[in-house]
Amino acid sequence: MKIVRYKTDNVICFGKLEGDDTVRRLEGNPLEGVNATEVTHRLNQVQLMAPIEPPRVFGVGLNYISHIRESGQKVPSFPMLFMKPPTAVIGPEAPIVYPHRSKEVCYEGELAVVIGRKVRCVSQQDALDCVFGYTCANDVSERTIQFAEMKTGCLLIGKGFDTFCPLGPVIVTDLDPGSLELDTRVNNQERQHANTSDLLFTVDKLIAYISEAVTLLPGDVILTGTPSGVGPVTPGDLIEIEISGIGVLTNPVVAET
Amino acid sequence: MKIVRYKTDNVICFGKLEGDDTVRRLEGNPLEGVNATEVTHRLNQVQLMAPIEPPRVFGVGLNYISHIRESGQKVPSFPMLFMKPPTAVIGPEAPIVYPHRSKEVCYEGELAVVIGRKVRCVSQQDALDCVFGYTCANDVSERTIQFAEMKTGCLLIGKGFDTFCPLGPVIVTDLDPGSLELDTRVNNQERQHANTSDLLFTVDKLIAYISEAVTLLPGDVILTGTPSGVGPVTPGDLIEIEISGIGVLTNPVVAET
Repeated sequence: MKIVRYKTDNVICFGKLEGDDTVRRLEGNPLEGVNATEVTHRLNQVQLMAPIEPPRVFGVGLNYISHIRESGQKVPSFPMLFMKPPTAVIGPEAPIVYPHRSKEVCYEGELAVVIGRKVRCVSQQDALDCVFGYTCANDVSERTIQFAEMKTGCLLIGKGFDTFCPLGPVIVTDLDPGSLELDTRVNNQERQHANTSDLLFTVDKLIAYISEAVTLLPGDVILTGTPSGVGPVTPGDLIEIEISGIGVLTNPVVAET
Repeated sequence: MKIVRYKTDNVICFGKLEGDDTVRRLEGNPLEGVNATEVTHRLNQVQLMAPIEPPRVFGVGLNYISHIRESGQKVPSFPMLFMKPPTAVIGPEAPIVYPHRSKEVCYEGELAVVIGRKVRCVSQQDALDCVFGYTCANDVSERTIQFAEMKTGCLLIGKGFDTFCPLGPVIVTDLDPGSLELDTRVNNQERQHANTSDLLFTVDKLIAYISEAVTLLPGDVILTGTPSGVGPVTPGDLIEIEISGIGVLTNPVVAET
């Protein structure tokens, strides 16, 4: 099923995508159970929102083998984890705001995992059972601040500005995360192209590893890392992140007013 | 006002402390407005909970000047920030669970700031206006994991285990954070003694700095860093963190079962 969250007539609700251009309204919250209604909309007549309002967003650094090789860095022996504040989450088409103080803002196309149920200490073998679905993410990063922070051993502001976590357009609930094509385009030019089969720490490993310490909650989002080809953007640019089986997440970059 | 959150007859509610041993039940959420009721309890007849369920917990490293000097590290030119997952939050008397895989779990006594209203880009001058109040915190840390993570430039698991963020016992709403005495005791022996006047980045600076990037939300908690004297604990130990004008946050350490 392809789940969307959308606004129409100033009401925000969940829906499911039928075909390419029909949204059927769902009653309830997909994490708890929903009922399909008789109400449908044309997709282009509703405003898509981030498909989930996550309680937490976990991020992973250096997780594509080709990217690690390309960057000349050592292969991490455990996942490099951080958190992005959920206030950074925006939906499809919403603008990524380029902060005044920024020197270099970069896109990072990523597969995002949405957790479906509360879980602690889940085994790698059982980890995918607690996944609700998958969506596209852009782990937008202010590199100058990020690198200065990482030298001190911590990371927040460089990854945490408001609007620095676009998610969407849909959550796909029945998808094998093991071999998905990921493409990032800026102004229609390809910048990243990879397959999730190149992940160092796979989705099941990440969930098992995090849940050994942290109880995962329904709606938690794990960004699984970005492949090679990251780069800067400037106000006026349009970023598209496409993952096979999910769709395209599109966001413009605008200057802070 | 001294705000508590407590459980009695399996109901969790907010209350205010009157004198040393009376809790008056409050209707509503203190972040939105409350009414005092006629219901009172003896303090020792209710179970205190963490006084807030924060949407986010922000932490700061190396923020006491004496501690920076003692550790021989460079004075940071900006706050070293990270997030702790709110699933780590526990209340007074609740056990800190020493994880199986841990080699060194340490206490860190800290002043915690509770944000009272949504705010972005607040000036240092106006920053304290958005504070709801202050409480005691223990920024419990698994040092072996923390240091391994920080070498990679990120930080999550070492600070993020369930139960690694005791908060309480009360939130004090009318307090000047500029000169508070902080003491940490383990099994009744003093381990940390400091004054918040020794903070490198003061509460107003921290709020202004974070809010320049991240919209702060009501209930967000900022842990302001720990002074010198940090050290390890083992199952069976009892940790007390006392801050003048607030009270004593007491938590036992237990082995993971």
